[in-house]
Amino acid sequence: MSDMKKNNIDVAFFSDPSTIHLMTGYLSEPHERILAFMIFKDATPILFTPALEIEDAKATVSNIQVESYLDTQNPWEIIQTLIISKGILHSNWAIEKQHLTVQKLEALQEFFPRGCFTFDYSPFMANLRISKSADEIEKMKKAGYWADEAIKIGALALHAGVSELEIVAEIEYQLKKRGISQMSFDTMVLFGDNAANPHGTPGERKLKTNEFVLFDLGVVYEGYTSDVTRTLFFGDAPSEQQEKVYNLVLNAHDAAMAKATLDMSASNLDGIARNIIADQGYGTYFNHRLGHGLGQSVHEFPSIMEGNEMPLVKNMCFSIEPGIYIPNEVGVRIEDCGYLDEHGFHSFTFFPTHLTAYTDFMKS
Amino acid sequence: MSDMKKNNIDVAFFSDPSTIHLMTGYLSEPHERILAFMIFKDATPILFTPALEIEDAKATVSNIQVESYLDTQNPWEIIQTLIISKGILHSNWAIEKQHLTVQKLEALQEFFPRGCFTFDYSPFMANLRISKSADEIEKMKKAGYWADEAIKIGALALHAGVSELEIVAEIEYQLKKRGISQMSFDTMVLFGDNAANPHGTPGERKLKTNEFVLFDLGVVYEGYTSDVTRTLFFGDAPSEQQEKVYNLVLNAHDAAMAKATLDMSASNLDGIARNIIADQGYGTYFNHRLGHGLGQSVHEFPSIMEGNEMPLVKNMCFSIEPGIYIPNEVGVRIEDCGYLDEHGFHSFTFFPTHLTAYTDFMKS
Repeated sequence: MSDMKKNNIDVAFFSDPSTIHLMTGYLSEPHERILAFMIFKDATPILFTPALEIEDAKATVSNIQVESYLDTQNPWEIIQTLIISKGILHSNWAIEKQHLTVQKLEALQEFFPRGCFTFDYSPFMANLRISKSADEIEKMKKAGYWADEAIKIGALALHAGVSELEIVAEIEYQLKKRGISQMSFDTMVLFGDNAANPHGTPGERKLKTNEFVLFDLGVVYEGYTSDVTRTLFFGDAPSEQQEKVYNLVLNAHDAAMAKATLDMSASNLDGIARNIIADQGYGTYFNHRLGHGLGQSVHEFPSIMEGNEMPLVKNMCFSIEPGIYIPNEVGVRIEDCGYLDEHGFHSFTFFPTHLTAYTDFMKS
Repeated sequence: MSDMKKNNIDVAFFSDPSTIHLMTGYLSEPHERILAFMIFKDATPILFTPALEIEDAKATVSNIQVESYLDTQNPWEIIQTLIISKGILHSNWAIEKQHLTVQKLEALQEFFPRGCFTFDYSPFMANLRISKSADEIEKMKKAGYWADEAIKIGALALHAGVSELEIVAEIEYQLKKRGISQMSFDTMVLFGDNAANPHGTPGERKLKTNEFVLFDLGVVYEGYTSDVTRTLFFGDAPSEQQEKVYNLVLNAHDAAMAKATLDMSASNLDGIARNIIADQGYGTYFNHRLGHGLGQSVHEFPSIMEGNEMPLVKNMCFSIEPGIYIPNEVGVRIEDCGYLDEHGFHSFTFFPTHLTAYTDFMKS
């Protein structure tokens, strides 16, 4: 890391699996076991894994020393030995405070009682992740392609009487059969008033005609996520309220998509969508931020929200997802994720957004 | 909490969603947002949630003050105000060091500069979770029932040429259609030499005759997990090596199941299985612990492993899962989870374990 010398850091200790993926190419979720990547001022970096993973890790990384521990060993003791073998004793550490637990920090402090653990690399890593490389954007485009496919599968499976969970099952089944095995988060398919709860969960509720179906989903493609929301109308014709709410959300979504530019603040972009909704008296029903960064994780720094004066920068990837939720009545959200450059916002997803009355595809 | 007075704790600050679920009945994963449950020596507890969740939280809990924050607010500032309103200033805190990140601890320290944050409730919570209540065991039996069903679905879908991911898709599809929407972890279906990697992941590999199929999966039922592994033989007849390795793992599994008793140490139980495998010269191929606790999480304290002298106690729920992995050749693991009482170990899962030659069910 270029600034280790400047900050006089002897050991940079990374514990967040997505950081480790970014820096080494090795992707693994260790659960309660210990996975760490350590960089030193003047020595070969170490990737430290549970014993079960060492072969996979060695096959993935290069120019990195790979070490591991058995379940019966104390991982911190082994880390101590490894670091002492690099000649590091009175050490100045950098850690990821956003990821490292207090328990793990105290374990490090126990084995390195003269270590100093104040320097935090989390903001540095968050900043590093803000602008994506061309290669990362290509992966996110592919993740977006499969998210569009997922909505298409869901739309084709809609019929009166089907349950939310059946649609979720159908989407994930078809994706898995086509080789996409991991979703970015639990797939959301919500019908009617259930969609009016922005944190609803899919269940046994059955689809009736003339209600909205809200899809919120994404896939993981080579370690990168997508995230898309569409609200489809199932039935003959939307009611006046349904149409009004839908088009208001769509206008807010389209305006934010069209007006997002480099150097605009995150807060301003949020305001563009929020004002459109608030001007029609629905402001209190849009009770969440406009969007969030995404990449290796589906929720990354920064939040696109009121009060965040951070400027939008080139190749930032984020969501634009206004919504209106009138409890027990109607819920609509329209979301696209994309990247920003000097030409504007480029969505990763393209499933149509205009209000269409869907009917039973499977029977036609 | 009974020992708050004894330990002179003013604020017990719980951040682990499974602790919050256990203590309040409210189950939610806040991702990067803040969810906390705070208990005070002499005041009503507070459940603190993101604004999006407050209605769900209020509908779930009783005798608890529910408070929330908007995305545009600083949650720590609101927590400060809430706690000061309880008349608490120079405060002695208990935190969950196993869950709380260093960043969140530093945020608390910033807003409570005179607070003391040394007391750790994580070991207390881990101990509290070791013995499950009758109600928890009932939920885990149901989670086990659905894990057995999942293996059955997978077994019935086996046919030459099917891919690992297709079997995963089929299992999760059938479960979702029957109302089971959440797996305990990414479902593992591994064929032949892929099963010889204890951390393999399912892919496009196609099933051939005369190879093993390793299923490792579980479901979440009302917040409680199951976890089961079966290694089925697909084909006409296993080779001598396949049969030998399988039956050795089965013997180790059965011996540990039969001999687990209250007050035996975790290390001793591990040894019962491990010695059977080591005596036949396969010790180095059994490169992980015998088992792990489970409950609200699929991996809980304690580890059933060499060196853990902790005694097994009544109503502890844990896995028994010996395995042998000979790289590029053969991998077999057999796992059941259950609870222990004075009559012995009671498995939550019952899918047959004897070596049977499965053939193409779908065609018969």
